[in-house]
Amino acid sequence: MPNASTPCLIYPMRGVLDVPETLIPVNEALLDGLARVEACFDRQLETDIPPVNDLCKHIERYRGKMLRPTLVLLCGLAVHPDTPRLIDAGASLAALWTDEHIGLGAVVEMVHMATLVHDDVLDEAEVRRRGRTVNSLHGNEAAVILGDYLLASAYHLCSSVESRDAALAVGDTAMTMASGELLQLHHRDDLSLDEATYFEILDRKTAALIGLSCALGAAASGAERDLVETLRRFGRDMGVAFQIRDDLLDLMGEESVIGKSVRRDLAKGKLTLPLIHTLANADPRVRGDVLDTIRGLDENRSQGMDAAVDQLVATMRDFGSIEYAKATAADLVSRAKSSLAVLPDSPVRRFIEFSADAVVTRRF
Amino acid sequence: MPNASTPCLIYPMRGVLDVPETLIPVNEALLDGLARVEACFDRQLETDIPPVNDLCKHIERYRGKMLRPTLVLLCGLAVHPDTPRLIDAGASLAALWTDEHIGLGAVVEMVHMATLVHDDVLDEAEVRRRGRTVNSLHGNEAAVILGDYLLASAYHLCSSVESRDAALAVGDTAMTMASGELLQLHHRDDLSLDEATYFEILDRKTAALIGLSCALGAAASGAERDLVETLRRFGRDMGVAFQIRDDLLDLMGEESVIGKSVRRDLAKGKLTLPLIHTLANADPRVRGDVLDTIRGLDENRSQGMDAAVDQLVATMRDFGSIEYAKATAADLVSRAKSSLAVLPDSPVRRFIEFSADAVVTRRF
Repeated sequence: MPNASTPCLIYPMRGVLDVPETLIPVNEALLDGLARVEACFDRQLETDIPPVNDLCKHIERYRGKMLRPTLVLLCGLAVHPDTPRLIDAGASLAALWTDEHIGLGAVVEMVHMATLVHDDVLDEAEVRRRGRTVNSLHGNEAAVILGDYLLASAYHLCSSVESRDAALAVGDTAMTMASGELLQLHHRDDLSLDEATYFEILDRKTAALIGLSCALGAAASGAERDLVETLRRFGRDMGVAFQIRDDLLDLMGEESVIGKSVRRDLAKGKLTLPLIHTLANADPRVRGDVLDTIRGLDENRSQGMDAAVDQLVATMRDFGSIEYAKATAADLVSRAKSSLAVLPDSPVRRFIEFSADAVVTRRF
Repeated sequence: MPNASTPCLIYPMRGVLDVPETLIPVNEALLDGLARVEACFDRQLETDIPPVNDLCKHIERYRGKMLRPTLVLLCGLAVHPDTPRLIDAGASLAALWTDEHIGLGAVVEMVHMATLVHDDVLDEAEVRRRGRTVNSLHGNEAAVILGDYLLASAYHLCSSVESRDAALAVGDTAMTMASGELLQLHHRDDLSLDEATYFEILDRKTAALIGLSCALGAAASGAERDLVETLRRFGRDMGVAFQIRDDLLDLMGEESVIGKSVRRDLAKGKLTLPLIHTLANADPRVRGDVLDTIRGLDENRSQGMDAAVDQLVATMRDFGSIEYAKATAADLVSRAKSSLAVLPDSPVRRFIEFSADAVVTRRF
């Protein structure tokens, strides 16, 4: 039974997923590994400047699904040559994670947190994971610098792990993420945004880091380049599906369930998949009505939006666009899972598949 | 004769400094080295996303003094074992800079640019280096993400140079810089800010990166740890002096000369050295008057400020606080130069001393 006060998708300690019995050994190992990631994360952010520590304490409250470190750890196990032997022996898999796996788990979570903190400034969001956002509590300035502090910390931690390739890949991915955000910003209020550009934005701003998490975990276990790239592809497909779902939740969800501000995308002029689908495929009359409604939103973004958005959602639903977006996400998850066919069947692989499925069924 | 359209302190190509004749060989080498740094900088920022490239083009206009890469290059020469031989032979010193020196020069400039772009968001500044700021032209959102893109690019470039120590040091310094900015924010509107905390803020937000530039340049030429640390100390002292001067220019300068928005510090509740000095040392009556004036500014920050600030400056001047701040900066430059005594006397050392002197005499 999900616990409403702990909004987590995968992190099993927080009791959101009903993990099948055969996956419990993986689950138990993850509890251990993620606790090590959290400890590493907290240690890295410690400073001798009290106001900085106070802000970082706030960040701890943002910690949610831990999806990205979970993928580092799971992909690290999935390719590890000793995993089958430990499973057969009934021994804990947690022993296979080195300091490099743990450090990289903290790095990807820190990069993710930095983008959350900066996104909340950009989105003028007030609620995140059921708490007030940094910007709404401490102002935009604190949020901008705190995000920079998190990025610097991630990079510093990353440079202290063994592999220089990891540091290069993290820098490269952070560039890709920022370019995706800039591309999204460039297309704000662009009512002719097409699907290809929408997917390009998602792939950059969200999927690149999820793919990186899978790749880093596999590489830290010594996987060959081809296998690393296959797992990255898995993560990218899963990541795009994840963001489509996120966009749907923003459109349809309730703040009390999701735990963050909703319907920000339309308010900020961001077109998402259902709307792109309706606009691209509706007949001229429906299309004209939808455009009028959106332009109307534009004029009084903050007030009277709920009724207008409800009407838009009804139109998109009638037109099959909500189902289309859900089906697109489901197809991406299927494709992602098919990438995993290169791995031997094992509880670890099944746990990863299970996590991928959860991406499109989650309600928050 | 300074050229008003090219506001540069040290970068000799732009003709601001009258370089003494004996230093011309160093000057010529720097022209060559800084052009390589610029090319590396531009190459690193190139992407396949046109709106990102457009924003990066804007960044090129921010390029000013190139103080930090200049220090990487000069300190790289100052400790290089082959420098004296090349000087004696009349050969160009530019041959001594490896790709590592050049890459690190681009890295420190990129970190600096990222903080400029984010600072302008925080300061709500509209003018920077005689052009409109990114935030005023493209909005705060573009400026926040562009800063992130620059930081990510710096980290990526830094991970591609040989030394892992450099990547660690850049991450560490970026953390220090952000913590300095957060400390400054914490003390906004704090009318009892003391000198020790003011210097701590300056050392972190400004001097750490200038010190790092000197250290990286020396380390890339193979200097021993002690010498690297001595040059870092030189850079930190020079950096604190640089920021004291910057704060004075904000208080006293004219936008048309400095090329950026002025008197932002008082408007944003930032106390700087002259005011801290007056408040700490004035008798209760003067102190009371000054506090009343500052609190008055606070109420109508944008309007009627000029006359009130003029009056404050007059009080600080009468009280000797402007002179005190200038003398403090000059003392720091002297101490910085005395650190250089470990280097053999050479045109390179004299060029570095010359650059340090320019920090406290510059008018922009």
